[in-house]
Amino acid sequence: MAEIAKVTIRPARREDVGAIVAMLADDPLGGGRERIEDPLPSSYFNAFEAVERDRNIRLLVAEDGEGAVVGCLQLCILPGLSSQGASRGLIEDVRVAKHCRSRGIGEQMVTWAVAEARARGCKLVELLTHHTRIDAQRFYERLGFARSHVGMTIRF
Amino acid sequence: MAEIAKVTIRPARREDVGAIVAMLADDPLGGGRERIEDPLPSSYFNAFEAVERDRNIRLLVAEDGEGAVVGCLQLCILPGLSSQGASRGLIEDVRVAKHCRSRGIGEQMVTWAVAEARARGCKLVELLTHHTRIDAQRFYERLGFARSHVGMTIRF
Repeated sequence: MAEIAKVTIRPARREDVGAIVAMLADDPLGGGRERIEDPLPSSYFNAFEAVERDRNIRLLVAEDGEGAVVGCLQLCILPGLSSQGASRGLIEDVRVAKHCRSRGIGEQMVTWAVAEARARGCKLVELLTHHTRIDAQRFYERLGFARSHVGMTIRF
Repeated sequence: MAEIAKVTIRPARREDVGAIVAMLADDPLGGGRERIEDPLPSSYFNAFEAVERDRNIRLLVAEDGEGAVVGCLQLCILPGLSSQGASRGLIEDVRVAKHCRSRGIGEQMVTWAVAEARARGCKLVELLTHHTRIDAQRFYERLGFARSHVGMTIRF
């Protein structure tokens, strides 16, 4: 592993939306699903506002020493009855900018999210990772996650 | 398959909490995680209230012709930036009372949830099912879900 990058984990702001979408699109799976245009389609900003309004959702970015956004992660805290009424944490859309990978940025973001979920009373944090993302699965196992479930999806 | 049961899918009410928790507990995996006491631990009712307050979460039950609760499902509609800012649907805690299985109740609930997610603008519905629940995986495949992801969890 290259030198660990010192990043600041902070809530995403509206002006980060472009950098976040660029990371979502810069990916074999995400590439076909996003639309990188200038200006960005307004649907991204509408979604950002919906995320901001939802007290149970945290969209985070990792910012490097020069103020550039080099990572993102979304954490949802989901109340529910199971496990004696404990909330669940759900981690989604974890991305690190290509030129910054293998420098511990994903680990810092996921560790932050797991600690936050725990602090908010979750007894479980879960995520789905595409079956082809073998490196991601190893990464999460290293952070203490188990490959306990099958993640099933239906796309319209 | 036995005769299809005619059920009504409706939002859960506070007085359904006991029936829902009983279904969550009546399961090899859920059994060790729940506490069936009389009265039920207040954590279940607190969680029910948190679910009710959250506009993006729908806790549903299936009610049979006699007014008994015989199934439950939780649907979360999660805003997020990916897929051009489309929301995601997450299905959790799907249960059917043991004496009512194989009568189409799970299918009616999941079909309802998928249609609701779609109506609310989701382009994707996702769920995690324990790797040992082979029958559940076949059930979801029959309803159009793909085994596309690995579901990873960390439990505290």
